[in-house]
Amino acid sequence: MKFNNRNVYVSPNAKIGRGVRIGDNAVIYENVEIGDNSVICNDSVIGEPLSSYYNDPKYENPPTIIEPDAIIRSHSIIYANCRIGKSFNSGHRVTIRENTVIGEHCSLGTLSDLEGDVTIGNYCRLHSNVHISQTSSLGNFVWMYPFSVMTNDPYPPSYDIKGGYIGDYTQVCVHAVILAGVQVGENCLIGANSVVNRKVPAFSLAMGDPIKIVKDLRKYVVMGKGKPYPWMTRFDRGMPWQGIGYEAWAKQERKNAPPRTL
Amino acid sequence: MKFNNRNVYVSPNAKIGRGVRIGDNAVIYENVEIGDNSVICNDSVIGEPLSSYYNDPKYENPPTIIEPDAIIRSHSIIYANCRIGKSFNSGHRVTIRENTVIGEHCSLGTLSDLEGDVTIGNYCRLHSNVHISQTSSLGNFVWMYPFSVMTNDPYPPSYDIKGGYIGDYTQVCVHAVILAGVQVGENCLIGANSVVNRKVPAFSLAMGDPIKIVKDLRKYVVMGKGKPYPWMTRFDRGMPWQGIGYEAWAKQERKNAPPRTL
Amino acid sequence: MKFNNRNVYVSPNAKIGRGVRIGDNAVIYENVEIGDNSVICNDSVIGEPLSSYYNDPKYENPPTIIEPDAIIRSHSIIYANCRIGKSFNSGHRVTIRENTVIGEHCSLGTLSDLEGDVTIGNYCRLHSNVHISQTSSLGNFVWMYPFSVMTNDPYPPSYDIKGGYIGDYTQVCVHAVILAGVQVGENCLIGANSVVNRKVPAFSLAMGDPIKIVKDLRKYVVMGKGKPYPWMTRFDRGMPWQGIGYEAWAKQERKNAPPRTL
Repeated sequence: MKFNNRNVYVSPNAKIGRGVRIGDNAVIYENVEIGDNSVICNDSVIGEPLSSYYNDPKYENPPTIIEPDAIIRSHSIIYANCRIGKSFNSGHRVTIRENTVIGEHCSLGTLSDLEGDVTIGNYCRLHSNVHISQTSSLGNFVWMYPFSVMTNDPYPPSYDIKGGYIGDYTQVCVHAVILAGVQVGENCLIGANSVVNRKVPAFSLAMGDPIKIVKDLRKYVVMGKGKPYPWMTRFDRGMPWQGIGYEAWAKQERKNAPPRTL
Repeated sequence: MKFNNRNVYVSPNAKIGRGVRIGDNAVIYENVEIGDNSVICNDSVIGEPLSSYYNDPKYENPPTIIEPDAIIRSHSIIYANCRIGKSFNSGHRVTIRENTVIGEHCSLGTLSDLEGDVTIGNYCRLHSNVHISQTSSLGNFVWMYPFSVMTNDPYPPSYDIKGGYIGDYTQVCVHAVILAGVQVGENCLIGANSVVNRKVPAFSLAMGDPIKIVKDLRKYVVMGKGKPYPWMTRFDRGMPWQGIGYEAWAKQERKNAPPRTL
Repeated sequence: MKFNNRNVYVSPNAKIGRGVRIGDNAVIYENVEIGDNSVICNDSVIGEPLSSYYNDPKYENPPTIIEPDAIIRSHSIIYANCRIGKSFNSGHRVTIRENTVIGEHCSLGTLSDLEGDVTIGNYCRLHSNVHISQTSSLGNFVWMYPFSVMTNDPYPPSYDIKGGYIGDYTQVCVHAVILAGVQVGENCLIGANSVVNRKVPAFSLAMGDPIKIVKDLRKYVVMGKGKPYPWMTRFDRGMPWQGIGYEAWAKQERKNAPPRTL
């Protein structure tokens, strides 16, 4: 992703921070604000107009804000009326539709597709080809793996659209399906190819189609390897407890007033 | 998707209707006809040459016709020798390969992939990431959800390619697989993550891997919500019975001579 | 994919073979070598810099080599430090990340995603939307179908990344999941929607979630059609035994010194 400044369109009304690099063939609309030191790679479109643009002559493109230190890889499309927290990192050909709010330090893999009206907390990792339907939401530190999907329609097609929710620290493995409106608790592990058709309590290992609650993860010991879940004490790359350990970080978080959900 | 007319290639032999808008970096080949008031968004390619183009010096690109009022979103690729009915609507990065015929008022979601020799009726809705293999076909008013797939090879790899068929009004939920050559009847609901390995009679709720016929949907009542299927009496957005009701529309359709399958 | 030479960037240091055609809006970096008679279609990027490029001022882009007779379709991205054998054929929007080695006569379908550090043998066919995670590898003559995936993390998220392996001639059907580190033998058939959680012996028909070994394929006879597997005696299109038959080819291979695994 070299930056040759070929065929780039940046609206004169866009607000571009210091040290921002913009790849060839990229388009930055007038409603966009890009934070300092961000990289917008080639062939990306930031601030894509909503559907009503095509028919409404008075259409005004609502603002999209990319906070500092983003890396948005090539051929990605981010619609108008989104807010993306600092240190965001995307793969290629990501689609983020309107009214989406993403917290800080998140990443989205290649070909991920957020269908709009999606809310994502901090430090979430969505791998390639994750599909999130409208009105779905994720807590913090949630990881989702390829071809996992959150749906939002209990009786398709219907007008009763209601996305699900995935709690903090939960891992959703490849090809898992979270059905419309389902609440998945904190610290769960949703197995590969599962169909999650009902509420999942915190600390559950849930697997199968439809899911069964197989284990309480707090009691789950893998022979010779210790307790794999919750995972935060054994994995810290890119996490806010990197270097200091999860327990120390969590203690410090609890001490910091005012109280917070994180 | 503003239209700055940057880096656009429209063959002088293409037939472009009135009021057509073409996005930046788009390519419209000489074999293409685009109906009035259509929108071809940025970075799309319409009329993509078939494989034989690369080797055959006498190659002639067969015609692709996009009927009026289409919106084809960015980075989409539509091959030569396709016909797409009026009021078509696509997401981003759609691929439609050669010899595909799509009826009127259809939509394809972001990243959908029609592999060629596909036939789709009227008023079908394919969501993001639907994959349709060669020689598959859909009736009218069929909806398919993300990561659902129609396959076409009973003993891969073989020369006995035969796509399946999905009947009118049927809903195919996320991650469902329709195996090669399988016929799915009208008015069915195929559950999430199902593997459809045999014929499904009309009005079936089919679920599981491999599917079981779980219910006759005509008898399926959800407590306190009435009968969810067939869905046409409770959902009309974008459907031809919008505003008048399905029963009135169907009656009127039956009255209109000559008789028709729609 | 006409070649109008519009908005093309080819580094003066790239090595471009004879008869190479490069599509509009393509980018070929300085670290790239493209073999004779290859076609790089529009909007592709070859030699994409690795992540460290964004932060390391001394970054040097390692070489990527595309051997002769490739057809790489539009909007594809191939990273630096890859080697792709002769007669490669890709669909659209393919992603091949760094440190990937692909043998001769392979093809990757539209939207396929090789996540890096992947090794693929000769004559493999990956269809649309196949996802291969880091450190996975495939033998020769392996076919994978849409939405099949190889994973690499046994306890996500962990540092114990270990991709699986798929043996020669094996077929992996749609929506199948090969879990981290699993070895699939030669000449297997992995059914649609399977979850492969353990080693699969050669010549197995494996199906289900989790898989069961259902049959020894050498004994698998389909009524009236003969023995479908191993498939090599009944299918030869694009295979090195095309025209001469598998048995004759295999005999000739065995005779050719030095001994080889192919």
